[in-house]
Amino acid sequence: MVVNLSNSGLHLSRIIHGMMRLNTWGYTIDEFEYFIEKVMDLGITTFDHADIYGNGECEEIFGRLLERNPEIRKKMQLISKCGIIRKSDKFPDRRVKHYNTSKEHIIESVEKSLKNLHTDYLDLLLIHRPDPFMNPDEIAEAFYELKKSGKVLYFGVSNFTIQQFKTLQSRLSFPLITNQIEISPYNLEHFFNENIYFLLEKRINPMAWSPLSGGKLFDPDDDRGERIKKALKEVAKDFGISEIEKIVYAWLLNHPVGILPIVGSGKIERIKNAVEALEITLTREQWFMIYEASLGYKVP
Amino acid sequence: MVVNLSNSGLHLSRIIHGMMRLNTWGYTIDEFEYFIEKVMDLGITTFDHADIYGNGECEEIFGRLLERNPEIRKKMQLISKCGIIRKSDKFPDRRVKHYNTSKEHIIESVEKSLKNLHTDYLDLLLIHRPDPFMNPDEIAEAFYELKKSGKVLYFGVSNFTIQQFKTLQSRLSFPLITNQIEISPYNLEHFFNENIYFLLEKRINPMAWSPLSGGKLFDPDDDRGERIKKALKEVAKDFGISEIEKIVYAWLLNHPVGILPIVGSGKIERIKNAVEALEITLTREQWFMIYEASLGYKVP
Amino acid sequence: MVVNLSNSGLHLSRIIHGMMRLNTWGYTIDEFEYFIEKVMDLGITTFDHADIYGNGECEEIFGRLLERNPEIRKKMQLISKCGIIRKSDKFPDRRVKHYNTSKEHIIESVEKSLKNLHTDYLDLLLIHRPDPFMNPDEIAEAFYELKKSGKVLYFGVSNFTIQQFKTLQSRLSFPLITNQIEISPYNLEHFFNENIYFLLEKRINPMAWSPLSGGKLFDPDDDRGERIKKALKEVAKDFGISEIEKIVYAWLLNHPVGILPIVGSGKIERIKNAVEALEITLTREQWFMIYEASLGYKVP
Repeated sequence: MVVNLSNSGLHLSRIIHGMMRLNTWGYTIDEFEYFIEKVMDLGITTFDHADIYGNGECEEIFGRLLERNPEIRKKMQLISKCGIIRKSDKFPDRRVKHYNTSKEHIIESVEKSLKNLHTDYLDLLLIHRPDPFMNPDEIAEAFYELKKSGKVLYFGVSNFTIQQFKTLQSRLSFPLITNQIEISPYNLEHFFNENIYFLLEKRINPMAWSPLSGGKLFDPDDDRGERIKKALKEVAKDFGISEIEKIVYAWLLNHPVGILPIVGSGKIERIKNAVEALEITLTREQWFMIYEASLGYKVP
Repeated sequence: MVVNLSNSGLHLSRIIHGMMRLNTWGYTIDEFEYFIEKVMDLGITTFDHADIYGNGECEEIFGRLLERNPEIRKKMQLISKCGIIRKSDKFPDRRVKHYNTSKEHIIESVEKSLKNLHTDYLDLLLIHRPDPFMNPDEIAEAFYELKKSGKVLYFGVSNFTIQQFKTLQSRLSFPLITNQIEISPYNLEHFFNENIYFLLEKRINPMAWSPLSGGKLFDPDDDRGERIKKALKEVAKDFGISEIEKIVYAWLLNHPVGILPIVGSGKIERIKNAVEALEITLTREQWFMIYEASLGYKVP
Repeated sequence: MVVNLSNSGLHLSRIIHGMMRLNTWGYTIDEFEYFIEKVMDLGITTFDHADIYGNGECEEIFGRLLERNPEIRKKMQLISKCGIIRKSDKFPDRRVKHYNTSKEHIIESVEKSLKNLHTDYLDLLLIHRPDPFMNPDEIAEAFYELKKSGKVLYFGVSNFTIQQFKTLQSRLSFPLITNQIEISPYNLEHFFNENIYFLLEKRINPMAWSPLSGGKLFDPDDDRGERIKKALKEVAKDFGISEIEKIVYAWLLNHPVGILPIVGSGKIERIKNAVEALEITLTREQWFMIYEASLGYKVP
């Protein structure tokens, strides 16, 4: 269950718990404390945040937990992200959604995350989206300062292409240790744009966001979804199980690139399915049954 | 006619004879022996196989020749490929076409090819298709073992993109010495995906499969084919010849990247056309007449 | 205003004056002399040519100026380009537009440019278009010879992709110091193909041709143009100015990759707008207002 992420020295749980919708789960603080305890009992110790999740509320709610139980901070690893500037009621002056990867903004965002989360450091900070206006030298300066001050231990990116990754990496004396990208049977984008092969080359473990494609695999609204669901069911039958989401997680977990899926659920049974998928080994043929169902044609 | 492939030390004939359809040529073993003798008289000494051609039959037929005339093995170079798992009557249990680039499968496939071909070694082994589930470390292990045992002398790939090539290369201490890709006036894909420019950079000679686009250039079934045929005829006229396939081969052979076309014919006259194309030097303008006919617009 | 291009030692003016349409400006030689004097008074000292502009006439007209005032050559930097072979009335024998990046043609083209321009050297020579038939070794030989003879001081490319750039660079012991590409709010192609990120990585300053998209931004003929014009107007209003082209130039000049826009106008007021844009600093949000207007959707 524990992964030395990209051989960096940062040890994360293979399954990551995603906090994007934490503000919608409707837990009281006691309930949330109990829930997170159960999650950690499953071996999940890594929690994925972003400055913008729930307009900052998600980090705040999680922070209340750490405020009450500061000692559990040492047993967990916290990821956060920055760089997206959303329009929202909170900021009526904003004219368009945009990115800000200036040194100033990155540091400010991290400091706010630390405050919200009631912690002194992030284990891992990611640039949330590739910024067409990015100045890699500025990002590097921010990273160096945050590393030096101990506010962030490790750094990575999210949704970057190969070249964007190389451009930022070129300014850093330490490695970027992950690219958090959308990967699921429904979304093969990072096979097509070759990120998967690049990450394999560099021995970098990606994290997969939206591994279930937002539920599209259970309740398909197009042919593609239908085809994938059918293939998942067929493979699930091979294993004598009914939960197709276990097959989805196994499909991700079995891939040689070493994917860490981010499970964004507020329900312990759903999270358990991801953990139990660690026990499932697909044959190559089963893996391709799902891959080709997604493609809509057989491989050449 | 002899090429030191990618400066590797492996000497191949510039024109390669492709065995994909050998099982359909309808030769008796005596006829086939006579035919291959004629082919070799033309200076063609390199023969391209794959484990899946004719469901294994093509290697078997060729192997009967080597069984009868083991001494000609030394005068020829054999290429084979592995990694594709086809559905077929022979394997009723297979559920989908897929790839297998596991160490175990690669070694097993080569051993079967050697047995079928009645030879102790392959000069060159290619991974037939890029495998989205590939583990480059496993492929490398298979290659090292095959190299050490002397069962395969050199290694390459087929149909790989630039990044896929780099990923596999990153695990090997010796160079991959070719990428066998589809190139023809009708198929400019590897100009567009930049493989041609990458192979130029690395001084790697590609092999061109389907250089005549399966006959589409002679008997076009679309506007593009018509345009290309017209351009080929015009250029052929400049040389006072009527065989437009010579112009196609010249178009490939003249390119600075150093293409080795794979000629898949069972007829000696057709193969002769490829060999004679070695004498033809196109002007840049003639080369572009064909390139632009394929594009359907003039270059910018 | 002065830029040490890609840290190469070649100092150019940040705004470059483009000579593509010089032959259509209708100046007498006296008027042209006066005009160029005004341009240089603005701090613009770099002039962009190509062998094919106006079928060679543009270099000739400019050359007449240098013939009359040879001493101003020292105060300016001249760029030219080669490699495109156009069909034209001047060359009735040409059958198709094509490229020629042979050693012989490159050297011949430069010698003709020098003669036409009445100068002994070019500050910078660019290969005008990536040539699918290019032999990078030949181009390198031409470059070495031109450098050695002092006929060309620095070298670059135009319209190259990342891989094409790497391929040519691999044959040179000195760096290619620019890629002259089309960039404008209307043309984001080199964000999408990642050239911008590659040039950032390598600290290479691009030059932007057609920065105003041939006027499409002032007189839009599609929704995209309309959207961009609206955004430009909104941003111009923030600065209390009416000339939206200043905002376009600022959008280019503000980008961290360090773009040198090529202004192709024969009117001094228009050129002044580009120079004055050097004083404008857009906020990130303003930059994205224009970027997203071009995309037609907000960033993810």
